[in-house]
Amino acid sequence: MPELRHDPIQKRWVIISTERSRRPSDFKVTSPPPDDKFCPFCEGNEDKTPLEIYSIRRDGTLPNTPGWEVRVVPNKFPALMIEGEHDRAGVGLYDRMNGIGAHEVIIEIPDHGSSMADRPLENLVKVFTVYKNRLIDLIKDRRFKYILIFKNHGRVAGASLSHPHTQIIATPVTPRTVAVELESARAHYQLKERCIFCDIIKQEIEAGDRIICIDENYVAIAPYASRHPFEAFVVPRAHRHDFGESTEEEIYQLAVMMKDLLVRLKLSLGDPPYNFLFHTAPNVIPQPRRPGYWETLSLDWHWHIEVLPRLTRTAGFEWGTGFYINPTRPEDAAKFLREVEV
Amino acid sequence: MPELRHDPIQKRWVIISTERSRRPSDFKVTSPPPDDKFCPFCEGNEDKTPLEIYSIRRDGTLPNTPGWEVRVVPNKFPALMIEGEHDRAGVGLYDRMNGIGAHEVIIEIPDHGSSMADRPLENLVKVFTVYKNRLIDLIKDRRFKYILIFKNHGRVAGASLSHPHTQIIATPVTPRTVAVELESARAHYQLKERCIFCDIIKQEIEAGDRIICIDENYVAIAPYASRHPFEAFVVPRAHRHDFGESTEEEIYQLAVMMKDLLVRLKLSLGDPPYNFLFHTAPNVIPQPRRPGYWETLSLDWHWHIEVLPRLTRTAGFEWGTGFYINPTRPEDAAKFLREVEV
Repeated sequence: MPELRHDPIQKRWVIISTERSRRPSDFKVTSPPPDDKFCPFCEGNEDKTPLEIYSIRRDGTLPNTPGWEVRVVPNKFPALMIEGEHDRAGVGLYDRMNGIGAHEVIIEIPDHGSSMADRPLENLVKVFTVYKNRLIDLIKDRRFKYILIFKNHGRVAGASLSHPHTQIIATPVTPRTVAVELESARAHYQLKERCIFCDIIKQEIEAGDRIICIDENYVAIAPYASRHPFEAFVVPRAHRHDFGESTEEEIYQLAVMMKDLLVRLKLSLGDPPYNFLFHTAPNVIPQPRRPGYWETLSLDWHWHIEVLPRLTRTAGFEWGTGFYINPTRPEDAAKFLREVEV
Repeated sequence: MPELRHDPIQKRWVIISTERSRRPSDFKVTSPPPDDKFCPFCEGNEDKTPLEIYSIRRDGTLPNTPGWEVRVVPNKFPALMIEGEHDRAGVGLYDRMNGIGAHEVIIEIPDHGSSMADRPLENLVKVFTVYKNRLIDLIKDRRFKYILIFKNHGRVAGASLSHPHTQIIATPVTPRTVAVELESARAHYQLKERCIFCDIIKQEIEAGDRIICIDENYVAIAPYASRHPFEAFVVPRAHRHDFGESTEEEIYQLAVMMKDLLVRLKLSLGDPPYNFLFHTAPNVIPQPRRPGYWETLSLDWHWHIEVLPRLTRTAGFEWGTGFYINPTRPEDAAKFLREVEV
């Protein structure tokens, strides 16, 4: 059973994941692993993954056989486990709980070599629809506080298999980064009765110099305080707090915007490694110790996607301080991406 | 002039470092840079660095000529600049200030190929003495809130030059990671009138299973909630809040402990890439809005070093949540390192 451990000084949860544990001696060889010879995510290899949870597939084809377009399976080496109770406990000065959660893999397409930027819009619409469907299914489990949808593209960005896939992890605590954003948004709303994200979108559209691409429905912005060169923040222009409540039309529009952005990154930067991740509404669980805590969530929170190209390395400075050195002005990055001929 | 920008949602400062800026097109080639052909840090190349700030050198040799043992120079591509004022300002919803600070490089030894683990203790004592001397010099500048000493060993850990060196950055804000630790330590002290680090050291020595190496003066612990496999926390066993107040004897004892730890990492893991960084007392600046804020610093804070081997990659999960998946139990890592025959 994986374990969540809390550090009382750095106020941080860490997952000690014994399921994917490596023996100390496994770390000795640090050369990159060989490229996939055999790919368990390719069509025809359905029996090499755990049994599928969900799929979009051709009529008449059976689960765990060929014929799928998007396929969801449990992660074979899950960071968190679906079975069990939290068993929260103190360990002297520390705190721990069982690593309860879910860890799924969304295989985005049967074609092994296809990059999300190159695929037909139709595929992206299906993939984003699956994100939504898995989110609203997982959020029913009241043991989970947050559902994180994230994609690692390229080995430098942490992808261990090159076949295009996205991961979903349901966590038993609200992750710190999300908690900080929730608190900031709440404080802003309490003072001003306005959504901080709506305020930022308005300010950015007026300024214009950090806009990467924009249409009537979504906007991709180079954040004012970008941590990484070419970082992007993709957000619905209208106030929406929960990605899981997106309509079919909104999902389609999101796919249009994400494809536009990913094509710009690919054409201008040569298929860079990247991560993207959703910051959506946390699971709305009544909190006896914080009455009213969730009541204004639909007013003060605004879901968004962070897209993080991984073009620079993080070093001691970033690890030691929690702040970042970015060698590229966000205004320059936005201009460069804006001017790509798509 | 570099710029510090603040994100009001994530509550994070970022340095936009125009001095080390790269044009967007420079990112296109993502192959690793060629290995150093010419090394500006080697003896004989003193004229290829900015003028030296400090050195330990043989009697009778002149600054910026051969004959040095440890040499400190300004970083040629500084993330922060020494000249100027903060010029704090709001930019709509955001905040900015000039990137005032210092960025120095400590060249640890003339020998290009020497790893810290392999060097005579005498060299480490000199290097750590230089850390202390630079710290107590930089902290005199009241524009600086924090002095960060950190080392990147190996390209994966962010070292752009392979010649052994350490960096010092003086920052105009207290970095978030350090601020969180300061607050936790303060809250613990206010409640209990005990140092949280002293409490943890006591608990860890009693438990024993996360101790990597220990002597009368220092202890290296695998933190209970380690983010990375083989992470270590090196700390003086006696209560000391400021590395800059270390005596000659304490510096010698620290060099003994750090050499012991680095040799264990090297022998067992094959010279892994790593970062280490000091968390010492911040610059004690009277804070008109927080009277009494610093008064108990010498009681509630305890300086320490984080040693972070970089054996796993951070991916979307870590970036999106601020928590970490560690595939190795800290107890297993500690046992493995403890049992290395040094």
